[in-house]
Amino acid sequence: MSFFRVASRRLSRSFAGDSMPIRRYLGDNVNMNGLHMIRDVTTNGSLGTLSGIQKMDQLVFFSRGISTTPQYQYPSAQLVEVESDVEADNKKLPGLEPTKPNEKPRVVVLGSGWAGCRFLKGLDTKIYDVVCVSPRNHMVFTPLLASTCVGTLEFRSVAEPVSRIQPSLARDPNSYFYLATCTKIDADRHEIHCETVAGDGMPSEPYCFKVPYDKLVIASGAEPLTFNINGVEEHAVFLRDVSHAQEIRKKLLLNLMLSESPGISEEEKQRLLHCVVIGGGPTGVEFSGELSDFIMKDVHERYSHVKDYIKVTLIEANEILSSFDVGLRQYATNHLTKSGVRLVRGVVKEVLPKTILLSDGTNVPYGLLVWSTGVGPSRFVKTLGLPKAPGGRIGIDEWLRVPSVEDVFALGDCAGFLEQTGKQVLPALAQVAEREGKYLAGLFNRIGKENGGKANSIGGISLGDPFVYQHLGSMASVGRYKALVDLRQSKDAKGLSHAGFVSWLIWRSAYLTRVLSWRNRFYVAVNWATTFVFGRDNSRIG
Amino acid sequence: MSFFRVASRRLSRSFAGDSMPIRRYLGDNVNMNGLHMIRDVTTNGSLGTLSGIQKMDQLVFFSRGISTTPQYQYPSAQLVEVESDVEADNKKLPGLEPTKPNEKPRVVVLGSGWAGCRFLKGLDTKIYDVVCVSPRNHMVFTPLLASTCVGTLEFRSVAEPVSRIQPSLARDPNSYFYLATCTKIDADRHEIHCETVAGDGMPSEPYCFKVPYDKLVIASGAEPLTFNINGVEEHAVFLRDVSHAQEIRKKLLLNLMLSESPGISEEEKQRLLHCVVIGGGPTGVEFSGELSDFIMKDVHERYSHVKDYIKVTLIEANEILSSFDVGLRQYATNHLTKSGVRLVRGVVKEVLPKTILLSDGTNVPYGLLVWSTGVGPSRFVKTLGLPKAPGGRIGIDEWLRVPSVEDVFALGDCAGFLEQTGKQVLPALAQVAEREGKYLAGLFNRIGKENGGKANSIGGISLGDPFVYQHLGSMASVGRYKALVDLRQSKDAKGLSHAGFVSWLIWRSAYLTRVLSWRNRFYVAVNWATTFVFGRDNSRIG
Repeated sequence: MSFFRVASRRLSRSFAGDSMPIRRYLGDNVNMNGLHMIRDVTTNGSLGTLSGIQKMDQLVFFSRGISTTPQYQYPSAQLVEVESDVEADNKKLPGLEPTKPNEKPRVVVLGSGWAGCRFLKGLDTKIYDVVCVSPRNHMVFTPLLASTCVGTLEFRSVAEPVSRIQPSLARDPNSYFYLATCTKIDADRHEIHCETVAGDGMPSEPYCFKVPYDKLVIASGAEPLTFNINGVEEHAVFLRDVSHAQEIRKKLLLNLMLSESPGISEEEKQRLLHCVVIGGGPTGVEFSGELSDFIMKDVHERYSHVKDYIKVTLIEANEILSSFDVGLRQYATNHLTKSGVRLVRGVVKEVLPKTILLSDGTNVPYGLLVWSTGVGPSRFVKTLGLPKAPGGRIGIDEWLRVPSVEDVFALGDCAGFLEQTGKQVLPALAQVAEREGKYLAGLFNRIGKENGGKANSIGGISLGDPFVYQHLGSMASVGRYKALVDLRQSKDAKGLSHAGFVSWLIWRSAYLTRVLSWRNRFYVAVNWATTFVFGRDNSRIG
Repeated sequence: MSFFRVASRRLSRSFAGDSMPIRRYLGDNVNMNGLHMIRDVTTNGSLGTLSGIQKMDQLVFFSRGISTTPQYQYPSAQLVEVESDVEADNKKLPGLEPTKPNEKPRVVVLGSGWAGCRFLKGLDTKIYDVVCVSPRNHMVFTPLLASTCVGTLEFRSVAEPVSRIQPSLARDPNSYFYLATCTKIDADRHEIHCETVAGDGMPSEPYCFKVPYDKLVIASGAEPLTFNINGVEEHAVFLRDVSHAQEIRKKLLLNLMLSESPGISEEEKQRLLHCVVIGGGPTGVEFSGELSDFIMKDVHERYSHVKDYIKVTLIEANEILSSFDVGLRQYATNHLTKSGVRLVRGVVKEVLPKTILLSDGTNVPYGLLVWSTGVGPSRFVKTLGLPKAPGGRIGIDEWLRVPSVEDVFALGDCAGFLEQTGKQVLPALAQVAEREGKYLAGLFNRIGKENGGKANSIGGISLGDPFVYQHLGSMASVGRYKALVDLRQSKDAKGLSHAGFVSWLIWRSAYLTRVLSWRNRFYVAVNWATTFVFGRDNSRIG
């Protein structure tokens, strides 16, 4: 999160080179779940080239974007700024030196999510030195995050330290992990500027430094969509990071305990124990399922005084699990309803400290509010003067390169195919990010062996086959040892789909084998076994 | 911690009844580790009786206390206040009703530490209903807390939910756990006043309520001693709770990562990676040992760029492990020195944000400061107008009763034998607290069977044998698979003592078998095994 906090304060100006005639913002195209008004913005712009780097043919493309909120509409004027004090800035900053001819080329990776970590894991560190810059020193195994909120899994079991994924970061003399955020990309100079994260009780200013790169890989991820609805940032909890899961867990247990206090009114008790989930995608559904499991097994046993007050409501503007097969959707709806989850169609208008206001005028009092309506471009990505894909992500070609600048690649949730590639922007899924990371590591290892690792050296080297995404299917657990498995290749294709206990077994084993390290595989298995034998842990620590 | 935050705001006035002539504060006698000036205060006072409850013979006793800081010297005037608005207060408060004659007697327990939890565990809930009031819903297995700071153990493994220790709290219709702090004890009315803890993002005022009791058990623990040294509260971390361990861990990992930032000065790097421990008791020594283990194994492997900068210093005014056998002390000193821990004799004068000022004028720059100089009476205990033992703890007789009030018992770190019992105040050890809890549960079960459970009903019932403490010995690990075991019954007695690997095995197995639940026994074993095979976890989550 704080990755973007800092970046948003400083507008990157380094792409507004002298030979860049004009650049327009190409509009956003985000999955909105119908929670807000739709506004069409049609714009067209031409992408310029930067002086001093390899020229591409003038890319001209047209986009029909759907903008979700006014904040996403950057007038082109805002981006076309002229560099001025960069020279002065640069001299002051300490940092690494550019690599010398006899040194290994340096790959700089921004981010430590699925895309960045899979790339780091696959990169051949005999060829490259690697620097990872991220405000988080671990990767979160997001598909299992919902399970940690209610104590089915421990937080530590779903977090994998980056230095375990790529040991060179800790070991090699010229490879580093920096706990920092990127504040600026200077593609001209082939370097980035960084600021260390602000720690608790760190009275000093953050350290600022620069990192020159031979190749830059942007995998900084996306941010939760709030559709500019008032009160979401302040009162709702997202479910994207371990700290979010910790917050949900603490709040849930706090509300359970507070509601036992004598003298508390019936109304207040109902409010405290009303858990509301906004957004019926896989995250919202899995969290609702885990929550109803927790209520049926653990709350009934361990909070017997208030067990009849706790309720779960899932609010969705359209249909839940809209990307899944219609049969599976029906199964999920039935299963959740049977498990006590109330499914409500509604559009959120405003979030107040204790109540949600829906657009039909209904007031929904809540004690815990979890917001999972998908993700959109991050503030950091928005400040970058790079070409954009429909939807506002960083635009990339089939080799995950960012056109118009040299040696810059982007992948994962922050990147999307440019419209002129003729390809759809891929969904923001772990699966996509992971496949892209693996592909790009292979590409880097190949060009590295042909001496294309250094800055401005790709030249005539063949990049090999372009990236092709093949969807392996979707999975979602719905609680009570039941899950959905949708093996269709796309939304409209036909294919296998399955729901029930066998799917749940597939879900568990698939995720267990995909957890990155043996250590965490072991821990996840131990957590599951312990929860099965002893029940969930409900100590409210921290 | 927050147990006392609220209590300190309100002075309990309910003990200043009409028939109470005078009560004087009997002085403090705390273990100071020589970190401050000693001032002798000799005072004598007479303890009055309260009207409406069973009268005791006027207790007159003399105390020679050693006061550590001016804040502990309460002039008697401060305590002798007259009740005034209690009547009005009382009417407004919601809460439980007093138990009816046909209902089970209600035992109210304040606190969820070793003493309170061992008592809860042993209490026969067929005889009693039980209410536990604590700002923490779990017990912390404190002897293993130091291991969680560096990732040898997970936080969850050393925390045991109270409702698992005494399932009646969650299950029985008239037994409750309240996540709250006690703000007042009204022994006259046999009731306590409580306030719920303030949660993150709880915009509302805390709920206030009262809980009438038949028997009250005060086990609210102690607080770390800071000797009124400036800056300790702000800049140092204590090591008493899971949240402290989490803070230490986060800070340690943050400093390790920040110090890798390019451009950071040598001096600043050394400061960031200087871990200072104040106080050479078992906690300080065990933490230093764990830290040096972590540095030798994990930092060298995973933070190889900064491994030569990290240092541990243990500052103690007198001797480390002063309660241990002299041979063991020598062993610990040698072992720690060999492990790279710098042992310094010194007295802290002031703590600044980045530097510790010693009384000899030395400046010690630090990145992490852990404060473990023992504990003293809590703010809550100080506000109670109850008789005090030498040292400022709540004064108790040999049956752990608080004299001058009826049906009130105190045990653990918050209680000490009154001087006229002729017994020493027992040290603030888990061992003592646990033994007292077990003893008191037995006493309660016995008198409960003879219908002595209700308020003011002990009458002629025999309480049985008084509590006698027999020291089983002390243990402390010093890192690198080495520990000390001191089996002497007291400081001056002769007996078995042992140091080395066998002691470490004894240390591990003794603690493993004392971890309360099978679930956590299993987890601690799994954690140890995993750390052995895979190394410590170093993800910085939360």
